[in-house]
Amino acid sequence: MRKPLLLLTALAAAPLAAQMPPPKPGDAPSPTEIVTAAPKADWAAIDPKDLLVMDLAPDDKGRARRVVIQLLPPPFSQGWIGNIRKLAAAHWWDGLAVVRVQDNYVTQWGDPDGEDKAKARALPKGLVEVPQSEYASEANQRSICGAPRSNDETYCVQAEPGIVFATDDLKLDIYANSVGFDHGWPIAFGDQKSWPVHCYGMVGVGRDMPPSTGTGAELYTVIGHAPRQLDRNIALVGRIIDGMEFMSSLPRGHGPLGFYDLAQGDERVPIVSVRLATDLASDKTLPAYEYLSTESASFAKYADARANRRDPFYIRPAGGADVCNVPVPVRRVKP
Amino acid sequence: MRKPLLLLTALAAAPLAAQMPPPKPGDAPSPTEIVTAAPKADWAAIDPKDLLVMDLAPDDKGRARRVVIQLLPPPFSQGWIGNIRKLAAAHWWDGLAVVRVQDNYVTQWGDPDGEDKAKARALPKGLVEVPQSEYASEANQRSICGAPRSNDETYCVQAEPGIVFATDDLKLDIYANSVGFDHGWPIAFGDQKSWPVHCYGMVGVGRDMPPSTGTGAELYTVIGHAPRQLDRNIALVGRIIDGMEFMSSLPRGHGPLGFYDLAQGDERVPIVSVRLATDLASDKTLPAYEYLSTESASFAKYADARANRRDPFYIRPAGGADVCNVPVPVRRVKP
Repeated sequence: MRKPLLLLTALAAAPLAAQMPPPKPGDAPSPTEIVTAAPKADWAAIDPKDLLVMDLAPDDKGRARRVVIQLLPPPFSQGWIGNIRKLAAAHWWDGLAVVRVQDNYVTQWGDPDGEDKAKARALPKGLVEVPQSEYASEANQRSICGAPRSNDETYCVQAEPGIVFATDDLKLDIYANSVGFDHGWPIAFGDQKSWPVHCYGMVGVGRDMPPSTGTGAELYTVIGHAPRQLDRNIALVGRIIDGMEFMSSLPRGHGPLGFYDLAQGDERVPIVSVRLATDLASDKTLPAYEYLSTESASFAKYADARANRRDPFYIRPAGGADVCNVPVPVRRVKP
Repeated sequence: MRKPLLLLTALAAAPLAAQMPPPKPGDAPSPTEIVTAAPKADWAAIDPKDLLVMDLAPDDKGRARRVVIQLLPPPFSQGWIGNIRKLAAAHWWDGLAVVRVQDNYVTQWGDPDGEDKAKARALPKGLVEVPQSEYASEANQRSICGAPRSNDETYCVQAEPGIVFATDDLKLDIYANSVGFDHGWPIAFGDQKSWPVHCYGMVGVGRDMPPSTGTGAELYTVIGHAPRQLDRNIALVGRIIDGMEFMSSLPRGHGPLGFYDLAQGDERVPIVSVRLATDLASDKTLPAYEYLSTESASFAKYADARANRRDPFYIRPAGGADVCNVPVPVRRVKP
């Protein structure tokens, strides 16, 4: 059920204002300190069923490179995510590679021979073709809060009480009518739809020219400034929650679009394996993960502090933050 | 002389609209194609007097790593930039190192022993202490165009005709009243001041807690999503125009804030030398550089295309772009 509400910004921001007297620069905790002090109750477990574990070949010094991806929850991108689960179950990525690293844009992995029909690795059976309409979802299936561009009112669409959150300082977005956070994910809203957004570390589905929407076999992650122009043009399926540095610090490719060009001395980075975490039960080294609940008071304080730095290093709070400049905190916990 | 002008957005955008009929997705050139097709007259030379050349030690495979920094023109940050010119002339950075790489934030270089008075390298004589007020400049010294947050009018402050540019699609900014481009640089505006902004690849001055403003001996560059909260809290002095990948692809540090921690196996990246380009006259390998004039028709088309992708890969133009998602094109040319 959809309940559009129009609230004055001052009202929407009241819970935040009640927690945060207006401090001057220098006398408030930093975002990191707020996260560190957050009570256990403000952290939410990440379901291991949503985790994908990619082991790259060890680096030049023999150090392991493990990358952990959290897949998006419903209603977002479930067709592609179903494909990805099948690809992982089939061990499809094993022995393939990181094929592209374009500076300030993306790191991409999949089949280096994917464009060559004679050499491309066969896809497992049962993958579905997902329509472009699935780039966004019906807004009434999710709940986010934000403000239209051109006035000072906050617009909320609530499915159930208590799961809506957006700070007054996040009311502006250049790419959508509004943005907010829902169950730990940055979400945009407009045209009666909602969709996940291309922030640093988000994982999306490479595709050919439209109407191709990609299968999920070719994936990328954002390693630079948020390329929000890709929102709703390509499927987002998750984000990297551990090991991001192994993707962002790879050598850039010298071919067009940053593809690795072996003729120019580039070397692809081999993928040893990609598994669903639930298929790694015997691997006792795999931690559990929690995210700072975006519906919690701690996240409200954290987002406010990202938008208004009042800790001692700062002399002038910005007065706002864009949605990708408020990364949702994730931590390892003992399983 | 300051001439504040209030223009309707439709008027401000008219030159752009005249060049660009409203195409559908799929039938327009990409930003890269627009840049490639830009006539020579739309490119502006970068003054070699503003270039700083940093040679890192070769990588593990013996490949050279040269990083070229363009320093900001007046009126921005000239006190720090004067210091940086003195430090380079004194060969002060030679033998020092990259000391910090924090994922999705900054790569920082300077004196690894800078915090240890007994071991720190002495600074050259004649460095000035720059006041915090120099983080921004009087707006009437520059000219930018943009829109206040809460209405649809474009606000321009012009010092002289012809140097003002902002697209209709860049009218929104979350961190300042308005943003635009001036002589090739992304600039924000508000409070009767203007200042450069923390986009990917911009170079700033590390400092201690305020009132320290830093000398310019410790520098950093942005390697992730634009940390705009740093605007006007720290001095920006330039940007990396060549070799950015050597800074962004370095291994991340394992100490607090991403500082390299030798005890955890991190290795600092040695700096062989930092020189003003004008002191490298004997180095015939140094190219000249040009940027796509932000006052040119080609840049207007490019910025419009960044905000509204209508090339064949896209199915839905975003309808806007944030200032850091419109990187100013720079190219090498034969000297």
